[in-house]
Amino acid sequence: MKERVMSTEDIAEIAGFIKKRAELVDLQLKDYLKTNASDRYISTIVGKSNYRYDSVAIDKALLDPAWYLLNLGGKRLRPVLLLLVIEALGKNPDDFMEFSIIPEIIHNATLVHDDIEDGSEMRRGALSVHKKYGLDVALNLGDFLFYLPMTAVFDSTKLKARTKNAVFAIYVRDMLRLGIGQATELAWHNSMVDPAQITEDNYLQMAFDKTGALTGMATKIGAVLAGADKTTVNALGRFGATIGVAFQLQDDLLNLKDSKVSKNKGVVGEDIREGKITLAIIYTLKTASDEDRRALSDILRQHTTDSERINKAVEILDRYGADSYVDKVKERLIREAWSELDRKLPESGAKKKLRGMLDFLIERTV
Amino acid sequence: MKERVMSTEDIAEIAGFIKKRAELVDLQLKDYLKTNASDRYISTIVGKSNYRYDSVAIDKALLDPAWYLLNLGGKRLRPVLLLLVIEALGKNPDDFMEFSIIPEIIHNATLVHDDIEDGSEMRRGALSVHKKYGLDVALNLGDFLFYLPMTAVFDSTKLKARTKNAVFAIYVRDMLRLGIGQATELAWHNSMVDPAQITEDNYLQMAFDKTGALTGMATKIGAVLAGADKTTVNALGRFGATIGVAFQLQDDLLNLKDSKVSKNKGVVGEDIREGKITLAIIYTLKTASDEDRRALSDILRQHTTDSERINKAVEILDRYGADSYVDKVKERLIREAWSELDRKLPESGAKKKLRGMLDFLIERTV
Repeated sequence: MKERVMSTEDIAEIAGFIKKRAELVDLQLKDYLKTNASDRYISTIVGKSNYRYDSVAIDKALLDPAWYLLNLGGKRLRPVLLLLVIEALGKNPDDFMEFSIIPEIIHNATLVHDDIEDGSEMRRGALSVHKKYGLDVALNLGDFLFYLPMTAVFDSTKLKARTKNAVFAIYVRDMLRLGIGQATELAWHNSMVDPAQITEDNYLQMAFDKTGALTGMATKIGAVLAGADKTTVNALGRFGATIGVAFQLQDDLLNLKDSKVSKNKGVVGEDIREGKITLAIIYTLKTASDEDRRALSDILRQHTTDSERINKAVEILDRYGADSYVDKVKERLIREAWSELDRKLPESGAKKKLRGMLDFLIERTV
Repeated sequence: MKERVMSTEDIAEIAGFIKKRAELVDLQLKDYLKTNASDRYISTIVGKSNYRYDSVAIDKALLDPAWYLLNLGGKRLRPVLLLLVIEALGKNPDDFMEFSIIPEIIHNATLVHDDIEDGSEMRRGALSVHKKYGLDVALNLGDFLFYLPMTAVFDSTKLKARTKNAVFAIYVRDMLRLGIGQATELAWHNSMVDPAQITEDNYLQMAFDKTGALTGMATKIGAVLAGADKTTVNALGRFGATIGVAFQLQDDLLNLKDSKVSKNKGVVGEDIREGKITLAIIYTLKTASDEDRRALSDILRQHTTDSERINKAVEILDRYGADSYVDKVKERLIREAWSELDRKLPESGAKKKLRGMLDFLIERTV
């Protein structure tokens, strides 16, 4: 398998593939999440009414904001990943389309809750859901969307009880991992933990839990649906979660780079301004001189918007080669995750595309 | 079976029974939700770490606030209900103690999210979780606690795959019902729906979904664990959910009564002040004269704290006998729910206690 250097043609090819699959996923989303809450539709989700559903209210406070969010876009990467795994394991992804939306709907729900938690007013260039519909409606929407896709599983006549159970167990565990990863980052962000105590392994675990939970859920559910054995499911789970971690590291690198070249969409040095604990920070706090360490800690604690101070922090990170260190860790993680999978999966077009997706996601520059 | 008039002795007896069972439930909670996030404990929840969990962070941002909340008290009514159902169906509740905490942990999670959505600063006489630990930590805690108890199911070696599936399906559907009920009430509260369009059946459905979801989940899971057939599970589900509805109606009645006698814990006429749509309001808007209807609508829309206006609203409700109407509906719901169950369950001490719990919850005066 080739090393991770993609040609322009490679990138265009995989981007085209993702786009085509994403269109099919969007059809599933439309089929699954109606735009109007008819009594019949609500009944399919939660069972017949005992009295009478107020479908106008349910439209206004659930389906309208759900579609507002879904229509903001997104690459539907998690469904594409889930389907590719099924294909790479020798099954026909068309037979499992209705399950592809599971990690996508959950991913969107996490965006709603994340935006509330971070106080983010914008999402994909538009108002975030809680700014548009109110905090109460948004919070409840997230709660609802977290569960909605599971109806695809227990209503299915295709799946055996054992398969359903395996999907449920993956789902519950990964939702919990998400909560644990998010709690870890919140504790760091809210200075509940001394930054000097946070290790590289703590960071990677946090990213594995927080960013990797849903990509890992996607690959594991794909594997279970394809009837894979437990070790294969686990290997694919590690691969999926590692995509999430590598994606996060790339995000952090881009944020750092933006801090330097000062041309991001208004979020120059956002991570530093927010005092975010990243791998670059952890590495530098560990390797820097006492003086630099103190200076960096101070700037982070200040949550400053002062560009001089932000530049100073970036200078310190540069001095110790933080970005090339993060890049090296990222490369190592990808290599390890892929080599495990490479042994497990037979050669196929789908396997090549899985590798392509990994490279595509990691080599992105925006 | 006696009619629903409890003697002081009856009330003391059932209260004592609930208290004793609640103590056993509390032991389960302690066993299930540790107070310190050791690596081993986190592993039992979400699996071994791939790198290393930051157990300090997880303590501070998950377990500490979880225990803060659980230690605020609560009657553990849902677990008691779940266990009583098992007993009434002829099984030994001691064999299923670890599952009793399912609706309790979820119930506590809903309190966290509800308090955020309502902007409530107090809970059970103390600061609400988001006031104490911050909105971000509280929101994430709720998300986490929603899923935590499900690990008791998929880790169980006692339950067959079919039973696990049945529990998961009940869990997912009732979580979705909760979201639908909550969305309905939020839409009403936020004036996304014309109050004149809201019918009695819409109100009862909302209460059935919002307040009844977790009591219904408790009775249904109890029934499934006891191996009941589908019709018995459904009958118990309706019974459980109806307890929730009747409880809600009683709550509304007490709030109305408090509005009149002006002696509640600082929340006199809270429902009217908040412009809350209750059955009493819906009934009165339907039956009142044009003039009274307009006056009542106006006061509700104002979200007023003016006691004169609140009294005026209460007067209008009184004029049309709203509280006796609500009381009548409540009695009818209880009668119907019980008569269905009465036929299904063989006579037993547990059945008597189920009936006692129903009366106890509904006849409460605070």
